Amino acid sequence: MHPHERLLLGPGPSPVSQRVLRALGAPTLGHLDPQYLQIMDQVCAQLRQVFRTANPLTFPVSGTGMAGMECVAVNLVEPGDEVIVCVNGVFGLRMKDVMERCGAVVHALECPWGETFPREQIAAALAAHPRAKVLGIVQAETSTGAHQPIEDLSALTRAHGALLVVDAVTSLGGHELRVDDWGIDAIYSGTQKCLSCPPGLSPVSFGPRSIARMDARKTKVQSWYLDVSMLRKYYTGGGGGRVYHHTAPINMTYALHEALAIVLEEGLDARVARHAAMHQRLRSGLETLGLKYIPSRSLHTLNCIRVPDGADDAGVRLRLLEEYGIEIGAGLGPMAGKAWRIGLMGHGATVRNVDLVLAALGTILRR
Amino acid sequence: MHPHERLLLGPGPSPVSQRVLRALGAPTLGHLDPQYLQIMDQVCAQLRQVFRTANPLTFPVSGTGMAGMECVAVNLVEPGDEVIVCVNGVFGLRMKDVMERCGAVVHALECPWGETFPREQIAAALAAHPRAKVLGIVQAETSTGAHQPIEDLSALTRAHGALLVVDAVTSLGGHELRVDDWGIDAIYSGTQKCLSCPPGLSPVSFGPRSIARMDARKTKVQSWYLDVSMLRKYYTGGGGGRVYHHTAPINMTYALHEALAIVLEEGLDARVARHAAMHQRLRSGLETLGLKYIPSRSLHTLNCIRVPDGADDAGVRLRLLEEYGIEIGAGLGPMAGKAWRIGLMGHGATVRNVDLVLAALGTILRR
Repeated sequence: MHPHERLLLGPGPSPVSQRVLRALGAPTLGHLDPQYLQIMDQVCAQLRQVFRTANPLTFPVSGTGMAGMECVAVNLVEPGDEVIVCVNGVFGLRMKDVMERCGAVVHALECPWGETFPREQIAAALAAHPRAKVLGIVQAETSTGAHQPIEDLSALTRAHGALLVVDAVTSLGGHELRVDDWGIDAIYSGTQKCLSCPPGLSPVSFGPRSIARMDARKTKVQSWYLDVSMLRKYYTGGGGGRVYHHTAPINMTYALHEALAIVLEEGLDARVARHAAMHQRLRSGLETLGLKYIPSRSLHTLNCIRVPDGADDAGVRLRLLEEYGIEIGAGLGPMAGKAWRIGLMGHGATVRNVDLVLAALGTILRR
Repeated sequence: MHPHERLLLGPGPSPVSQRVLRALGAPTLGHLDPQYLQIMDQVCAQLRQVFRTANPLTFPVSGTGMAGMECVAVNLVEPGDEVIVCVNGVFGLRMKDVMERCGAVVHALECPWGETFPREQIAAALAAHPRAKVLGIVQAETSTGAHQPIEDLSALTRAHGALLVVDAVTSLGGHELRVDDWGIDAIYSGTQKCLSCPPGLSPVSFGPRSIARMDARKTKVQSWYLDVSMLRKYYTGGGGGRVYHHTAPINMTYALHEALAIVLEEGLDARVARHAAMHQRLRSGLETLGLKYIPSRSLHTLNCIRVPDGADDAGVRLRLLEEYGIEIGAGLGPMAGKAWRIGLMGHGATVRNVDLVLAALGTILRR
């Protein structure tokens, strides 16, 4: 097993540090071993810090980011529930699909891909759907690179009696995100973006209003694997109250523990500032090369630019990969062939990487 | 991150070799990197060999063994379908629960825990439920250690028009298992048992009759994450037909690749024979110590014995863990407090480990 040492500057996975890879390869413990349970408790505590929440029900789902989305949906939605999902890219569309598979009646709120939703549009949608029980929105739309403001939405959802559900897959650990201060009721992310851990786990957090909703369910959660009424007995049981549910992904938990330790050593504020600075550095370089950003409010963590006229989309990406060992992302969904996505996430958001990808792109586009 | 070097002789996870741990920590590739896709294709080919099947639709689900069970259930069952589930332990019960959450009308076929189902009982159940579309059965019931014969069931299910669905979590790579020869229509397993890879992936295989059933579905699969109609475009798409679904757990795939290479280097027949021999060696030693097996037909891979009168269940396990660094399993469900489960799986099924756990148990039980 000798994988190339790629420089991962796409939409994820992001570069994983040697510290995290070494933790990943540590000896496997049993999932009920006292030492493992301690490690898991620490991971949950670290996640609370990174999510900036006191929610006891904060843990890593045993699957990738999409499993986290599904976990939130299956637990909070019951058949027939009305929900509003904000759709301005692939991941909003997916949230709509996942909620519908839970039996929800989804009111899709749309704005053009690359744009973000003004607060007034969301307020109007809530007013138009008085029975909506959930408002789902993507903070970091990985398909378009759009950065959705979410910090002032909970006043709307609370007045309405709806839960605020946030997709933070490409923002957690890279963008400002305050679960408690912003009144987010449920949130999910992935390990392979700004946390710079390999893919395989999905951090989630449920606030008290979500727990009340789950406790009041009339129907069983349709997924056994993702049923929080059972999972919480393992993740938050503690001491003698802990109940086996499924065999947790032990070694991935080690890796996440180390990745979160690195995030907290740097400090959340410093980390967010670093992502902002690297984005500015990249943006300035890309614009000097004549390249244009697609979203009007770009994420710092993912830079979605238009493939310039005359350039060979796949050819340029292949040359980056083969000549420089650099991976960047193609366009997704309707943006296929039209966009490149350059991720600067976690361990990958460095001056060295920014200047290298600018030099490489400049060279390839000139030839 | 300095986990103890436990000797894992419980019901899983099993001991993971240094080769596999090193593979796990190899540099992370992108999930659409040509090299990664080649590794994934190889893993699917290795899995076909280990399952002894030609099924093209054979791949690792991105979750632990229970995700594999759920993947098979959500794809093969539609609301209102009648199914028969054989329940003689915790995992049969779980299969019933998972199927019910898919909307199935489950006819539970029961026999005493620790026993296995005679073929005649299964034939009678099929006759009693002419509309049953699936027969679900556990080959290796991890809660009781019972080894269910399944090699002659497909004639029954095929005559009936039902799919034969098998739980092979604790048998794949340790017990005789022939998916094609035995006419198994869908099967799932876990990586953390007899394959001796860390937990986190669930190998599954779907035969042509399962695919026909999925293709004829009238309803959408309730799980987006586990929807095989989309997953197959990633895992079996090949070349230009491969479509992104979710970010696969890259490093876990490396580990599984290495673990499967080890299985195939040893050879399936030799591996099954080794598990049989180590089981006999352990069994003979345990019986010499006066310990009694619970199941009438014991698995080779998991030895479920009665906690002897007067012994302190938790105390003995704690001493094994603290004095010897050996993990064995407690009883599960109704067997809690009454059973010990000693796993001899994959890398753990060695003379050295058998003789050590016998010596340790002998010493502790004598004192």
